[in-house]
Amino acid sequence: MGNAKNTYRFQLEKEPASHVKPGGTTREASAKQFPISQGIAGVSMRLAPGGMRELHWHANAGEWGFVVTGSVRNTCLHPDGSSYIDTFGPGDVWYFPRGFGHSIQCVGPGESHFILIFDNGYFSEDHTFSITDWLSHTPVPIAAQSLGVSPDVIARMPKGEAYFAGPGPIPNDLSPYSTPRHDPTLLTTHRYPLMSQQPRRTPGGGTQRTVGVEEFPISTTMAGSVLEIEPGGMRELHWHPNADEWQYYLEGTAEMAVFLAEGEVVMNEYEKGDVGYAPMGTGHYIKNTGKDLLKVLVGFNNGHYQANDLSAWISTNPFDVLSTNLNIPFEDARKLPKHEHFFVPGR
Amino acid sequence: MGNAKNTYRFQLEKEPASHVKPGGTTREASAKQFPISQGIAGVSMRLAPGGMRELHWHANAGEWGFVVTGSVRNTCLHPDGSSYIDTFGPGDVWYFPRGFGHSIQCVGPGESHFILIFDNGYFSEDHTFSITDWLSHTPVPIAAQSLGVSPDVIARMPKGEAYFAGPGPIPNDLSPYSTPRHDPTLLTTHRYPLMSQQPRRTPGGGTQRTVGVEEFPISTTMAGSVLEIEPGGMRELHWHPNADEWQYYLEGTAEMAVFLAEGEVVMNEYEKGDVGYAPMGTGHYIKNTGKDLLKVLVGFNNGHYQANDLSAWISTNPFDVLSTNLNIPFEDARKLPKHEHFFVPGR
Amino acid sequence: MGNAKNTYRFQLEKEPASHVKPGGTTREASAKQFPISQGIAGVSMRLAPGGMRELHWHANAGEWGFVVTGSVRNTCLHPDGSSYIDTFGPGDVWYFPRGFGHSIQCVGPGESHFILIFDNGYFSEDHTFSITDWLSHTPVPIAAQSLGVSPDVIARMPKGEAYFAGPGPIPNDLSPYSTPRHDPTLLTTHRYPLMSQQPRRTPGGGTQRTVGVEEFPISTTMAGSVLEIEPGGMRELHWHPNADEWQYYLEGTAEMAVFLAEGEVVMNEYEKGDVGYAPMGTGHYIKNTGKDLLKVLVGFNNGHYQANDLSAWISTNPFDVLSTNLNIPFEDARKLPKHEHFFVPGR
Repeated sequence: MGNAKNTYRFQLEKEPASHVKPGGTTREASAKQFPISQGIAGVSMRLAPGGMRELHWHANAGEWGFVVTGSVRNTCLHPDGSSYIDTFGPGDVWYFPRGFGHSIQCVGPGESHFILIFDNGYFSEDHTFSITDWLSHTPVPIAAQSLGVSPDVIARMPKGEAYFAGPGPIPNDLSPYSTPRHDPTLLTTHRYPLMSQQPRRTPGGGTQRTVGVEEFPISTTMAGSVLEIEPGGMRELHWHPNADEWQYYLEGTAEMAVFLAEGEVVMNEYEKGDVGYAPMGTGHYIKNTGKDLLKVLVGFNNGHYQANDLSAWISTNPFDVLSTNLNIPFEDARKLPKHEHFFVPGR
Repeated sequence: MGNAKNTYRFQLEKEPASHVKPGGTTREASAKQFPISQGIAGVSMRLAPGGMRELHWHANAGEWGFVVTGSVRNTCLHPDGSSYIDTFGPGDVWYFPRGFGHSIQCVGPGESHFILIFDNGYFSEDHTFSITDWLSHTPVPIAAQSLGVSPDVIARMPKGEAYFAGPGPIPNDLSPYSTPRHDPTLLTTHRYPLMSQQPRRTPGGGTQRTVGVEEFPISTTMAGSVLEIEPGGMRELHWHPNADEWQYYLEGTAEMAVFLAEGEVVMNEYEKGDVGYAPMGTGHYIKNTGKDLLKVLVGFNNGHYQANDLSAWISTNPFDVLSTNLNIPFEDARKLPKHEHFFVPGR
Repeated sequence: MGNAKNTYRFQLEKEPASHVKPGGTTREASAKQFPISQGIAGVSMRLAPGGMRELHWHANAGEWGFVVTGSVRNTCLHPDGSSYIDTFGPGDVWYFPRGFGHSIQCVGPGESHFILIFDNGYFSEDHTFSITDWLSHTPVPIAAQSLGVSPDVIARMPKGEAYFAGPGPIPNDLSPYSTPRHDPTLLTTHRYPLMSQQPRRTPGGGTQRTVGVEEFPISTTMAGSVLEIEPGGMRELHWHPNADEWQYYLEGTAEMAVFLAEGEVVMNEYEKGDVGYAPMGTGHYIKNTGKDLLKVLVGFNNGHYQANDLSAWISTNPFDVLSTNLNIPFEDARKLPKHEHFFVPGR
């Protein structure tokens, strides 16, 4: 695909943080910082207890979130008027459709760290709209009329964008100041507990947990996975026919190579905090090169998860196709995979 | 979104008319004339009684029409072979899917003025195909063979594009020359009487009538509204998560501001005949700055109408979120909206 | 549409073949070679008996195939794990969704010639991924681990991309080396016998056979037709509201003109082996200018076939619309088409 000169690795956690505030910090990987990632962008965000990523929305992207550590409480308004307040812990996933207003607040104890994945490589600040940015750049009489309050209430609000607010008091579920003001919605629409899922597993190789629109109906434009790979093991050669893949390395060290056709392969080493990318349709594998478990978070820009594994492809073709195609005798063709491998143990 | 230098106002009715003919005149606002309007284009057209916007189609856009004054009769052919002849008066809406052949003829008495809105900012003449343009640039023997007529019939047709034809005789519903030649279709597929709808209303503030694909099934790619706002009143701060908004000011004077994130707000004054634009996801409000009723026609490039109002968003968040986010005491947070305002009366 | 300087004819079969091998040869018409064809690309491919277009996939396009001569056996893997092995003869059509792995092998007797049509004008080699290209550019230890074989098996495979493999032995349906290794799928998902369809026919004019997603559910993104036109006859003036059209002239000679609006018409002569193109929404006709039957294969980049014929459009409009629009007396309007012509005999 002609872009091997570009790298497929971006060391997100080594970037300087931006929007550094008592409430939180953020690091961003959009196509601006990581040019190869045209279809998906990502963010690594940390909030202090009581710190808040303020009320905001994204004009050009849906948001898929995964909690690494700590707990957060999110609020979200739908255009149909329904609203949601949910709490997320480590391993939980959220999804906010493009343009839906939401907030994220760390409820402690301790910092919360989470990864945000967006279904648009050109997601960025200039398409993100925060409530304080809006109100503070609206004439006070207009804001006061629109909200039905006296101008002095508006005048006490922040001048300029807060982005991260607080830390404020930790929400108290017994207080009317912390709870929904309208009829509470009992259903959880925005939350999927991914790490509580029974994983798909290859003994000695690894596990995969995956969530798409079938399991999590609101996430129509994105799917995601967590892979755990044993030392020496690998996620075998495979490709995704319908989506780009954005990777965040949670734990361990890895080798990941992207096959770009016409003889071009780009191999990189990855470590904790790195981001990788495999464009739609490109062949790739992930191998654990360390002594500890490798954990990788993966996001896709399609609600339907699809993958083709090389072993499955080979195992469903007759021996004569393999023998002619690979120019090998039948006895070699018979050694090739007879079923899908998925994960492969170290050897 | 970084384009504040561009204006969000275009004085459509002050543009010189093009295609000026006895049958009609037109004024166009595509992304060529009004660069900010990347997602939607519009046209203001006037027909004399009996004048006709000839049989034509648009290769790259669906067409949503709204009659301001007078009456027109439209014809349309669907690819499935069904055909429709409908008459529209003031306040009626039509929709022709991309590529469907149609015509518009003023049936009097008096001129008809209507606004056309297209779901593509780059709609323009070079993607509009007229029957006389086609036939007059096709070799006469080919046109004659294709239509099964002698070449002299073709030779009597216009040389070059008519664009506006006539004025011809006003259609006479009792004459076989004016009525459908095939079995008449009793259903109205292309017409929605928007101004006959019971509006959504805020006393003292204003009214909104809206039509999307739910009310008008053929309009799969567009929705539209008419807003009427009382003097001093305003359509509150809000945004549309799924569509760009194209505005045509029908009556009165207004202030409309677009919030573009990163501290950028562009405010303009609007008067009758002006066009405004709010890109998908941008915050905006419309305030009536005059002494008379303000009337605004609005088109969206999505069949499903969606809006998020700031008051609704605020009212569905717990007080502690508002207090921490806006850095205000609880007693201020309790003064903020408790339900959606939609329209706000003058104060 | 402003690009008349570009030609709408590409002499595909006069291009030099590429990937010339004992197993097969190919000629390609993408937007690179034929700039006007922005929405659809095509390939003319020939395989020797036993020759194989090796296991591969296309990252950015679905593939619609039509067999001109000879027979081929195809294999295909779906991401859901189901796999298919089908045999195709002259007049049969296949469809492989974007990113699905497949192979094509000529099963004799004699060469097979087939036309591939892709729903992306920028389909090309750099988005086509072959199994030998992949395996030979993957480190041997990685490939061996992934496939679960010893490195010497990998070492015996081709260095570099095969593209065309073989010729190998002709598949033998009685041998376990040629048959599915998993449970055979009895349904045919990928094959539609287009030339066995009862055609739509105008006596003396021509016939059309068409297949879209209604007849062939897997072909969600493409439709296709074969037109047979009598000497002197023509496919009348018409346009497609929802798709670009890519033509391959199978037999005979033709005149085809594309109407681009604003008075621009581009007419070209076509002969066997030529490719033509009519962008979405442009008016066009095809006339048989020779003494023999004209046969044209047509592909569309939309699963739903739609066409508007000029005669149908005219016949569904009242006489007064035609008289005013075309500036002709009622007696001329009454000579115009009273029903759809579709094909027109020579005169």
